Amino acid sequence: MKITVLGDGGWGTALSILLDGNGHETMLWSVDPDYARILRERRSNPKFLPGVRIPKTVRITSSPSEAMEFGELIFSAVPVQYMRAVLKQCRRSHRGAPIVNAAKGLEIGTLLRGSEVVRDVLGEVPVGAISGPSHAEEVARRLPTTVVAASQVRGLPETVQRALNNDRFRVYTSSDIMGVELGGAIKNVIAIAAGISDGLGFGDNTKAALLTRGTVELARLGAALGARPETFWGLSGIGDLITTGPTGTNVMDIHLLLVG
Amino acid sequence: MKITVLGDGGWGTALSILLDGNGHETMLWSVDPDYARILRERRSNPKFLPGVRIPKTVRITSSPSEAMEFGELIFSAVPVQYMRAVLKQCRRSHRGAPIVNAAKGLEIGTLLRGSEVVRDVLGEVPVGAISGPSHAEEVARRLPTTVVAASQVRGLPETVQRALNNDRFRVYTSSDIMGVELGGAIKNVIAIAAGISDGLGFGDNTKAALLTRGTVELARLGAALGARPETFWGLSGIGDLITTGPTGTNVMDIHLLLVG
Repeated sequence: MKITVLGDGGWGTALSILLDGNGHETMLWSVDPDYARILRERRSNPKFLPGVRIPKTVRITSSPSEAMEFGELIFSAVPVQYMRAVLKQCRRSHRGAPIVNAAKGLEIGTLLRGSEVVRDVLGEVPVGAISGPSHAEEVARRLPTTVVAASQVRGLPETVQRALNNDRFRVYTSSDIMGVELGGAIKNVIAIAAGISDGLGFGDNTKAALLTRGTVELARLGAALGARPETFWGLSGIGDLITTGPTGTNVMDIHLLLVG
Repeated sequence: MKITVLGDGGWGTALSILLDGNGHETMLWSVDPDYARILRERRSNPKFLPGVRIPKTVRITSSPSEAMEFGELIFSAVPVQYMRAVLKQCRRSHRGAPIVNAAKGLEIGTLLRGSEVVRDVLGEVPVGAISGPSHAEEVARRLPTTVVAASQVRGLPETVQRALNNDRFRVYTSSDIMGVELGGAIKNVIAIAAGISDGLGFGDNTKAALLTRGTVELARLGAALGARPETFWGLSGIGDLITTGPTGTNVMDIHLLLVG
């Protein structure tokens, strides 16, 4: 399959290496022509995924039209706050391929989820999302990782599952794209609380209470917005929270956690 | 209220200090007259809860009859493997007070839960259980902690809640005693797997996947046994798992985790 990954951050790079390793023709798009040249020449991403080799078979471009025309499936690993600007550049070249948001967060101002930003810019195109406990550097090191792929488009979660699955990366499927995208975003409120709990000198009991009862609150908020509460008890809610929370959150991370 | 705590381990000691602090007349029972004397004279529990002061108002006894006749409510913090022997000593003196199991585990051989061992020895007495992420040393240090109190006896979860609740210790209630007791016991299988994951050099992604998808399996097993699956997404399932798992499990802990 021909697959495009938008976004030259750690996660976009890790996804393109994963897809390439699964035998797909993969193209990684960088917003910055100079950085695209660095990626292409060094076959590594020194700023965002240092120490990981990018195989020669991963094509690298900074051309929006080349990227959009290449992929039969498009992952967007562009941070949610930059998605709108990036998608506007890509709009004319989009040929209808499904776009799968891989970034966590809500757009400041509109509070839209990533897949909603896609629809807001590109219209009624097929959209999906992946989310879950998936630190890019661990995926790149082939440490066992799971995510959930969600879409209301029939068959799209399974297409994403087939594209990404291998013996170290396991994809579950869901039709609750709202819950999956919300989970990845709003769980960070509880992750920040967990960091505050550490800062106050509280212990494991307190943190476990925060994560567990905090997830109950995420599920209630999600349900009020129209998502399925049980989604927040999956990989994209408490699963992601376990990865983000107990490893400690510092003040430097807080802005990133809040805005994606 | 007059409350007895059976068991001179760290958890029994922390519970008796907590109850005493809440203004209850509290009696702590030790199986061993010599150790009861140490507890009484030193006002500390050097073996199981070092560095924590036991207030003078906590009565300490090694007499089963004194302990059983004292409490209007009885917590059993005796390890599940010793419960049967302890309860047999206490049987003649039991005056009908509710017995709340505070230990996690299943009895080897019978696979009975703690509250089932109580019923097996004492007959149809009122039983309950408390469980959740509650390291004794953190409770003794007054770090914020939550547990769930469960019973099918009407009003008993609320009685336990009122007895234990304070501004640092928050008790939730449930009628699913089976799920609450099973959660505290079988979550250790996943906690051990999390320790193995660490040992294999896997990362946060792997551990989050294990804890999240492992809890799905606990909930399925629990449901097959007659418990409510959602209980395992609460304090006594994934909540307790978060405390036990990510802090690392070593081989020395494994026996303890398996048999309670």
